[in-house]
Amino acid sequence: MSAVGESGAASAPLATRDASDARPRRILIVGGVAAGMSAAARARRLDEHAEIIVLERGEHVSFANCGLPYYVSGEIADESALLVQTPESLRAALNLDVRPRHEVIGLDPAAREVVVRTSAGDEVLAYDELLLAPGTIAVRPEIPGIDSVRVGTLRTVGDAVALRELVESEFPADGVRRAVVLGAGFIGVEAAEALRARGLEVELVQRGPHVLAPLEPEIAAPIAAELARIGVRVRTGVEAVGIEPGVERDTVLLSDGASLPADTILLAAGARPDTAVFEAAGILCEDGAIVVDERGRTSAPHVSAAGDAVRSTDPVTGIRRSVLLAGPANRAGRQIADHLLRPELARPIPAPLGTAVIRVGSLTAALTGANRRALDRAGIDFATLHLHPNQHAGYFPGAAQMSLLVHVRRGDGLVLGAQGVGPDGVDKRIDVLATAIRAGMTAGDLVDLDLAYSPVHGSAKDPVNLAGMVGSNVVDGTLELWYAEHWAELRDGALVLDVRSPGEFAAGHLPGALNVPHTELRGRIGEVRAAAAGRPVLALCGSGVRSHIAHRLLAQEGFDSASLSGGMLTARAVLGDAVLVRS
Amino acid sequence: MSAVGESGAASAPLATRDASDARPRRILIVGGVAAGMSAAARARRLDEHAEIIVLERGEHVSFANCGLPYYVSGEIADESALLVQTPESLRAALNLDVRPRHEVIGLDPAAREVVVRTSAGDEVLAYDELLLAPGTIAVRPEIPGIDSVRVGTLRTVGDAVALRELVESEFPADGVRRAVVLGAGFIGVEAAEALRARGLEVELVQRGPHVLAPLEPEIAAPIAAELARIGVRVRTGVEAVGIEPGVERDTVLLSDGASLPADTILLAAGARPDTAVFEAAGILCEDGAIVVDERGRTSAPHVSAAGDAVRSTDPVTGIRRSVLLAGPANRAGRQIADHLLRPELARPIPAPLGTAVIRVGSLTAALTGANRRALDRAGIDFATLHLHPNQHAGYFPGAAQMSLLVHVRRGDGLVLGAQGVGPDGVDKRIDVLATAIRAGMTAGDLVDLDLAYSPVHGSAKDPVNLAGMVGSNVVDGTLELWYAEHWAELRDGALVLDVRSPGEFAAGHLPGALNVPHTELRGRIGEVRAAAAGRPVLALCGSGVRSHIAHRLLAQEGFDSASLSGGMLTARAVLGDAVLVRS
Repeated sequence: MSAVGESGAASAPLATRDASDARPRRILIVGGVAAGMSAAARARRLDEHAEIIVLERGEHVSFANCGLPYYVSGEIADESALLVQTPESLRAALNLDVRPRHEVIGLDPAAREVVVRTSAGDEVLAYDELLLAPGTIAVRPEIPGIDSVRVGTLRTVGDAVALRELVESEFPADGVRRAVVLGAGFIGVEAAEALRARGLEVELVQRGPHVLAPLEPEIAAPIAAELARIGVRVRTGVEAVGIEPGVERDTVLLSDGASLPADTILLAAGARPDTAVFEAAGILCEDGAIVVDERGRTSAPHVSAAGDAVRSTDPVTGIRRSVLLAGPANRAGRQIADHLLRPELARPIPAPLGTAVIRVGSLTAALTGANRRALDRAGIDFATLHLHPNQHAGYFPGAAQMSLLVHVRRGDGLVLGAQGVGPDGVDKRIDVLATAIRAGMTAGDLVDLDLAYSPVHGSAKDPVNLAGMVGSNVVDGTLELWYAEHWAELRDGALVLDVRSPGEFAAGHLPGALNVPHTELRGRIGEVRAAAAGRPVLALCGSGVRSHIAHRLLAQEGFDSASLSGGMLTARAVLGDAVLVRS
Repeated sequence: MSAVGESGAASAPLATRDASDARPRRILIVGGVAAGMSAAARARRLDEHAEIIVLERGEHVSFANCGLPYYVSGEIADESALLVQTPESLRAALNLDVRPRHEVIGLDPAAREVVVRTSAGDEVLAYDELLLAPGTIAVRPEIPGIDSVRVGTLRTVGDAVALRELVESEFPADGVRRAVVLGAGFIGVEAAEALRARGLEVELVQRGPHVLAPLEPEIAAPIAAELARIGVRVRTGVEAVGIEPGVERDTVLLSDGASLPADTILLAAGARPDTAVFEAAGILCEDGAIVVDERGRTSAPHVSAAGDAVRSTDPVTGIRRSVLLAGPANRAGRQIADHLLRPELARPIPAPLGTAVIRVGSLTAALTGANRRALDRAGIDFATLHLHPNQHAGYFPGAAQMSLLVHVRRGDGLVLGAQGVGPDGVDKRIDVLATAIRAGMTAGDLVDLDLAYSPVHGSAKDPVNLAGMVGSNVVDGTLELWYAEHWAELRDGALVLDVRSPGEFAAGHLPGALNVPHTELRGRIGEVRAAAAGRPVLALCGSGVRSHIAHRLLAQEGFDSASLSGGMLTARAVLGDAVLVRS
C-alpha cells in the first residue's frame, strides 16, 4: 500500500486548507482558447473550491484554431471536430463557469472589477485574480475597399464554416472561383493551400521577399516551389493597395500595378494584440503587447497575462518581441495558475523559442530559435551550416533529402537557431534542436547526442549529429565555408572548383568553375594549383560532403580554400537555376 | 573575400606541418565497419599524409549491417545497396588502404606490431597507433546439434544473401517452410518479421519473459501482440536445449518440452566481444569487453578501441556495460581520430545512453536511458510515468495513440529513461527525451520545451511536455500514482474507483471496481465516501487523464487517493485482458 500511503502526506496541505486560506476565491479569465483555458483547467485541479469564470468574446471556447484551414480543405470533415471542449463539458469535468459571447469592455485594477458586455447588457464582475488571455485581432490594411463583404479572415470556427460553405457552393458561371490571400504567413499559406485543394484559383500575395517571413530564404525557396507545384500562384514583394468592389467579383489592386479578380479575399496579413481595453486601464504594454514578468504578472496587482497578447524575450538574442504560438500560450496559462495558487512550487515561465512547423503540399518546414535577421540585429557573430541529409539510411527505400540549416555562435559553437524543409523527418530534427537550444548545447554537444537509429528511422550519424560535426569543424577551423550569396562578389578573385562527377557537372554548374572530381583531386593537384594561380579556391559539390573532403586536402596542401555551405543544392535555392550553365 | 580570407589562418597549423611532426605516420585500424571506418575517414580528413590501413576480417567493409533483415525481406531489393563503400571507393575518395579478408591473429603492444592472416599467409604489420574496432561474434549456445548446417546467423552480407536465396528458393513439398529464430533481441525480431514476410512459418524463441529484453514489459507487450498479428509465433520463457538433425528438416527441442520442426534456424541469442586475441596480448578487458578511457585509450600505449567490443559506463546509473549500437560506435571512432591527430581540440568520448529503435509490423518501439532493472540495480529512487498521447492533434485525421513511459528521479524529477511504442511519432519523442537526458533535464524542464506544433505534426502540449507535466506533478505531490502491477495486492485494502463512462466500464473493467464517471464525481462524492469506508481510493480511467482530475478532487476532499499510471491501457498491457470483467 506504499504507493497510496504516500498520497495522504503529500496532498495534505491542499486537502486541509480552509476558509482562512489566502488563495483567491474568484479567478476571472479573459479569453477561453489556449492560454486562458489551460489556466482555468489547471486552476481547478489545484483548487477545488475557487470560483473560476472564463469570459470569451467569441462563440466558442477551447476550439481548434490551428485546425481551421484543414476544415476549409475538407481534410477535417466535421465542424464538431474543431470544438475540443464546450462550456457544458468543462462544467461537468472541471466545474468551470465558461461564458462565451462575453466581451470585456472595461477594467478597473484598483477596484478589481471588469465590465462585461453581453447580449443581455453590460455587467460588472469583481475578481480576486484576473488573467488576461485576449489573443490578437487581424491587422486590416487601410486600403480603399477593405470593407468589401468579400474580404474575410480565418480566425474563428465561424470564419471557417463560412469559407467552407463558399467553396462548397456552386461555382460561378465561368467555372472558376478565384481567391486572393493577402499575407503568406503560416495561416495565409495554409489557407491558400486549402482553397487550392478545393479547386479555386489562388493568388498568394506577400509584401516581403518570400513566403513565411521567419524562414531563411533558402528554406523558404522549396516551399515557394511546392506552392507553385500545387497550383498556388505566389507573388512576393508586392502588397494590396486597393480593392475595387464589383457585382460578380471584386478586384484586388497590387502595388506593382497588377489587378487580381477575386470571389473571395482572405486577410492574413498579420495580427496585433487585442489589448486596447487593458492598455486604456493602465496595464503596461509595448507596441500594444502586455508586458509581463516571469510569473506572468502585469504592471497591475492581481492581473496576469499570457498568450499571443503578451510580449516576451527571445532567449537566444535577448530581443523583446511577441510570439503568436499555441504551445507557449498553453504552457504559460498553466504555469500562471501555479503562480496564483501555489507560488512556492511554481516555475518561472520560460521565454519561448518560437519553434514552429507547417506542412505545405508534400513538404514540411520547421524552425526554432533565432534566424539571421534576429542574430544580425542582436550583433551576434555566427556561422550558418547547410546540410542535405536523408531522413533515414540512404540504402533503405524511401530515403529523401531534407535541407537543414543551423546557426552556431562563432567561438564556442553555441546552437542559436535551426530551420529545415523536406518531405519527411524535418519536425523530428527541429524538435531535437529546439531541445538542444533550450539546454544551451553547442555544436560539439550535438555530435554526442544518442539519437534513435534504425535504417527505417534515421542514420547512424543522424542529421543532428552531422550538423554538430560540421559546426564543430567550422568553429575550430577544420572546415572553412563559403556561401552562395557571396558567389558573385567572390568569383573573380578565386578559382571555383567543382569536385562533383563529370556527369553532375555537365548537368548544370556555376559559370567559370573548374571540374575536378574529388576522387581525382590528389592526382590533379598540380592542375588545380595552376588554375588557382595563387588565388583562393572555392570548392563545391552537391551538398557539401565531398567539397569538405576536398577542402581538407587543399588546406593541407597549402591552398587558401573553402567549401560551399550546402553545395549546389543550397546554391540553387539561393541563386536560382538561371545562373547555371550546362556543358 | 572575408569568408575565404579566414580560411588560411585557421588551417595554417595543419597545412604547414612537416616531417618533424609528432603525429602518427601509420595508423592501423582493426575492423572496417562502423567505428573503424569512421575513424579511418576522419583520420584522413585531419591528416593527408598519414598511412591509414584498415584490416577487416570479413568480405566487406562499411556495409549496412543494420539493413540485413530488410534485404532478407526484400524491402531492400538489391545486394549492392548494402555495400555503402568499397575498398576502391575509399581509396579514391580518401586514399585509405582497406584490406578485407585480413584477420588479425596476434598483437604485440611492446613491439607495436600485429600479425595478420590472409589467404596469402601470415604477415607482420607495424603501427604507430592501433585502433581496435573488432566488433562482436555471435553467442552460440552449447547445445547438441548446434553445428547443424541449418543453423545460421544474420551478421554479414553473406549471411543475408544466403538466407534470401533460401527463402526465394522453391518451397518444400508440403508448401510450408519453417524457421526457428533463437533470441528475440533487435536482430531476432527483425529477422523473424523478415522471414514471415517471405511466407515462412516463424517461431521466435526467447529465454527471457518478453521480446526485446531492454524494453519494459508494458512496452514490449504491444510488440508481442503485433508479432502475433503478422503471424510470428512468440514463445517466451523457454530456450533451445537441443537440435535434432533430420533429412528433410531439423527439430529444435525447447526447455518446456516442445519440439519445433525447422528448415532454417537463425541464431540471434546475443553477441560477445571478438577480443580473444587482444585480451591474450594483455589488453585489459572486462567480461571480454575492452576497457577504455574517455579518449578511447586501452591499457596499452598507442592502442585505442571503439565500437561494440568496448565497455562503457551508463551515464544515468554509472553501471558499466557494453552498448552494441551503430551510432555510438560511429561517433567514438571519429572522436578517436581526433584524439590521435589533434588531441588539443578533441572532446571526451561520451558514455552512450543506449538509445535504440525498431520497427515491428506497423509499430515502432524505441528507448533511451535507463530501464527499471538498471535503476533498481543502481539503487536509484524513481517514479515511472505512463502516458498514451496521440502523435498529433486528436482532431486531425490519422491521430493514433502511442504508449510513452518515462522514469524520473524522485526528489528532483531528473529524467532517467524513456520508452515508447506506437504506430507513429515514437522515434521523435524518444529522440527529444534522449537529448533531454543528455542535457540533465528534469520533468519541469520538459514542460518548458518549445516543440514544433501544427495539427499535422504534434499537439500544443506535446507528449514530451505532457510527460513533464505528469512528472512534475508526481515529484511535487500534486499527483499520486498507483501501478497496475500492484493491483492484486492493493485491491482488498482499497476502493477501486473507475471514473470512465458507463459504456467504457461495461466493455471491460477490473473486478470489484465502482464506476462513477469523472463528470459525476462532485455530485456523488458521498457515495464514494461510503464505498471507500475509510480505505484509500484507487482511481483509474482510460489513460490516466480523467483519473488525475478525479484524484485532485478526491485529495482535496480529504481522501487518501491515487491515480492509476497509464490507466486501463497500461493495466491491460501489464495484467492482460483475462482479468477484465464485462457488465
